[in-house]
Amino acid sequence: MRTRAAVAVEAGKPLEVMEVNLEGPKAGEVLIEIKATGICHTDEFTLSGADPEGLFPSILGHEGAGIVVEVGPGVTSVKPGDHVIPLYTPECRQCASCLSGKTNMCHQIRATQGKGLMPDGTTRFSMLDGTPIYHYMGCSTFSNYTVLPEIAVAKVREDAPFDKICYIGCGVTTGIGAVIYTAKVEIGAKAVVFGLGGIGLNVIQGLRLAGADMIIGVDLNDGKKEMAERFGMTHFINPKNTDNVVQEIVNLTKTPFDQIGGADYSFDCTGNINVMRQALECTHRGWGQSIVIGVAPAGAEISTRPFQLVTGRVWKGSAFGGARGRTDVPKIVDWYMDGKIEIDPMITHTLSLDEINKGFDLMHAGKSIRAVVLY
Amino acid sequence: MRTRAAVAVEAGKPLEVMEVNLEGPKAGEVLIEIKATGICHTDEFTLSGADPEGLFPSILGHEGAGIVVEVGPGVTSVKPGDHVIPLYTPECRQCASCLSGKTNMCHQIRATQGKGLMPDGTTRFSMLDGTPIYHYMGCSTFSNYTVLPEIAVAKVREDAPFDKICYIGCGVTTGIGAVIYTAKVEIGAKAVVFGLGGIGLNVIQGLRLAGADMIIGVDLNDGKKEMAERFGMTHFINPKNTDNVVQEIVNLTKTPFDQIGGADYSFDCTGNINVMRQALECTHRGWGQSIVIGVAPAGAEISTRPFQLVTGRVWKGSAFGGARGRTDVPKIVDWYMDGKIEIDPMITHTLSLDEINKGFDLMHAGKSIRAVVLY
Repeated sequence: MRTRAAVAVEAGKPLEVMEVNLEGPKAGEVLIEIKATGICHTDEFTLSGADPEGLFPSILGHEGAGIVVEVGPGVTSVKPGDHVIPLYTPECRQCASCLSGKTNMCHQIRATQGKGLMPDGTTRFSMLDGTPIYHYMGCSTFSNYTVLPEIAVAKVREDAPFDKICYIGCGVTTGIGAVIYTAKVEIGAKAVVFGLGGIGLNVIQGLRLAGADMIIGVDLNDGKKEMAERFGMTHFINPKNTDNVVQEIVNLTKTPFDQIGGADYSFDCTGNINVMRQALECTHRGWGQSIVIGVAPAGAEISTRPFQLVTGRVWKGSAFGGARGRTDVPKIVDWYMDGKIEIDPMITHTLSLDEINKGFDLMHAGKSIRAVVLY
Repeated sequence: MRTRAAVAVEAGKPLEVMEVNLEGPKAGEVLIEIKATGICHTDEFTLSGADPEGLFPSILGHEGAGIVVEVGPGVTSVKPGDHVIPLYTPECRQCASCLSGKTNMCHQIRATQGKGLMPDGTTRFSMLDGTPIYHYMGCSTFSNYTVLPEIAVAKVREDAPFDKICYIGCGVTTGIGAVIYTAKVEIGAKAVVFGLGGIGLNVIQGLRLAGADMIIGVDLNDGKKEMAERFGMTHFINPKNTDNVVQEIVNLTKTPFDQIGGADYSFDCTGNINVMRQALECTHRGWGQSIVIGVAPAGAEISTRPFQLVTGRVWKGSAFGGARGRTDVPKIVDWYMDGKIEIDPMITHTLSLDEINKGFDLMHAGKSIRAVVLY
C-alpha cells in the first residue's frame, strides 16, 4: 500500500512530506492507522544529526495513537478496530528482562529496532523508487500508516481521544512513570524537579498523584512557573536568583526535627550533566534518590564524589518511566479518562502533517509544550 | 582515672603507647574496658595524614569489644558487666534519620563526633600534662578504657569471644551488611566483588549467606584466591589476565536464556574510582546495582555516562553496611556464634598494645587480613 509520511531524508534538513510504500504486516506484526502523533525532543535529537545512531532516510515519530487495520499471522492480542498506542519499549513477556520483574527494558527486538529494522531484519517502508526507508524507535508515527510488532502495541480503551493520549506514548509515561514505577515515591515525600518542560510537568503531576508534600521546580525560565504550579508544583527556584541551588534546596527541605535537609527524591529532566550532579547532591543524606530522565549529549559524563553515595544517596535512571508498555500504558490512559492526570493543557498546538516542520520550530522556540500532528 | 593507650601524636608518625588521663562517664555516657580491638585501614588513613578531617593528638581505633565498667546518670540500656561493641555509627532511635526507617546513619551526635569530641563538646582523654586528646570516630578503642555515649554501644551476648567479635565493630558488619541491608541480595543472584581484602571477604561470605548463585571475585593478587574461595567465591578474575574486566564479567554471567549478561549486584571494596566505574558498568542492564563501599582519596570523583543509569543500573553506597548498630550488631554476633558466618580465619595476627605499630606494618605489607590487639 501507499501512505503519506514525513520523511527524514537527511540529518539537519526539514522533514519532507511525501507518499511512500508500506508493506503489509508479516507474522507477529500489526498494521496501524496513526490518528495523532506528538513531536518530541528525541525526534529533534535524531533529525539534527546529534544522535550517533541516527539513520537516514527514516520516518521519525514515536509518540502516537491509532487504530489497528490489519494483523499478520499469529497475532492474538489485538484485532482490527482496536485502539492502540505504539511502544518504543516493547513488552514481550517472554525474555529474561520482562520475566525478571525488575525492569521494563524488554530486549526481545532491541538489536533490530536499534538498526531501524523490523524483527526480521528488513524495513516495511520504501521510497516510491524502491529505496528502503528506516523505521525509527520501532514506531515511525510520522507516517499515517505504520507497521509494528505485536509486542510493541498497547491496547487502550476506545473512548479516549487520540489527539491527547498519543502523548502517553512517550512524554506522559516517561514523567509520571519515573515517579511511580522507578522512584516509587511515597505519600508525604519532598521532591525536586529540574527542568519544567513537557517531561518535567509530567513528573510534577506524577508527584501530585503520588501524594508528595513538597514539589520543588527548578528552571532558568520564570515563565515556566505558572504552568508548573497548575500541575502541582509547590515551590519554584530559578538558579539565576541563587548562588547555590543545592544549598537552597537543602535549606528549603529542613524542618525543626530534621536539620539535615535534602530532597527525598529528585528528577533531572534537562539532559545537562551539571544539573544531574546538582540533582544528586541536593537529595537527603541517608536515603535521597536521584533519577536521571534527561538524555545527555553523546559522550558526556556525570560525576560526583563517591562520598555522596557512601552517605546514602542513590543514583538511578529511568527509561519510558520504568513502565511496562502493554501492562501500564492502558492504566495511564484510564487515569487520564478518570481525571487523575491532566494532558489537555500540555497539548499547546495541533498541526496537520503538512505543517509538521512548524512543530519542530515551535519546540526550538520554546513556544510549545507539546505540538501534536493530527492525520 | 588513668589508662594505657596508643596515642596518635602526629600525622605520619607511629603511635605512642603511654598512660593518659580518662574522665569518668557523664550523663548518658558509658565507661568501657576494651578487651580487644582490630586495626583497620581507616585508622591508617587518618594516621597517615591523608584524612583531611584527621585531628591530633588523638586515640584512634574503632573496631573493639569490651565490658561496661560504669554508667553515667540516665543510662538505662546497659549496666556494668554487660559485654558491648562500640559503634562509630550510633543508633539513637530518636532522630529523623533513625526514625526514617530508610538509613542507619543516625545524626544525633554527628557534629561533635566529627570534631573528635563527646556530645557535650569536650574530650574525656588528656595527656598527663593536661593537653586534651581527641576521640576518634566516637570510639577510641586503642585505649584500654574508653568512654562512649550510651547510643553508641551495642549490647551483645556474653559467651562471644572479644578477640573475634571486635571485628564485627567494623569490617564484618561493613561487608556482610552491604549485601544484606544495603543491596538486599536475593537467593540465586549473581554478584561481583572488587577487592578481596578484609571487607571483600566479608562481602563474599555475606553473599554466601544470602544464597547468591555466582560470587565472582576480582583482585590483582592471585594470592587472594584461596582464602576468598574458602569464604564462598565461585569464580576469580585477575584483571592482569584480561583486556576488559567488564566484558569478562558480562560474558561470564550470560546464559542461554539471557544473552545480555551482567552482574545483578557488584561491590567495590577497593576505594579506587576507576574500579568503581567498572563495578557499575559490569552490572546487568535494567536492574544491576553497584554498591560503593571503599573510601576514595580526598577529592577523587567517580564518573560514567548517564546512559548507564538510564538503562537501569543503580549506583549506591554503603556505610557500616547499612546496619543499625544497636539493633543489628547483636544479631551478627549471634550469626557468628551459630556458625552462619566465619571470623576466625580472618584474624591472622594477635598483638599486645605495645606491638600495635607492628599491626600497621603487617597491613602495609599485605600480610594480615586483620590484626587484633588484645589488652
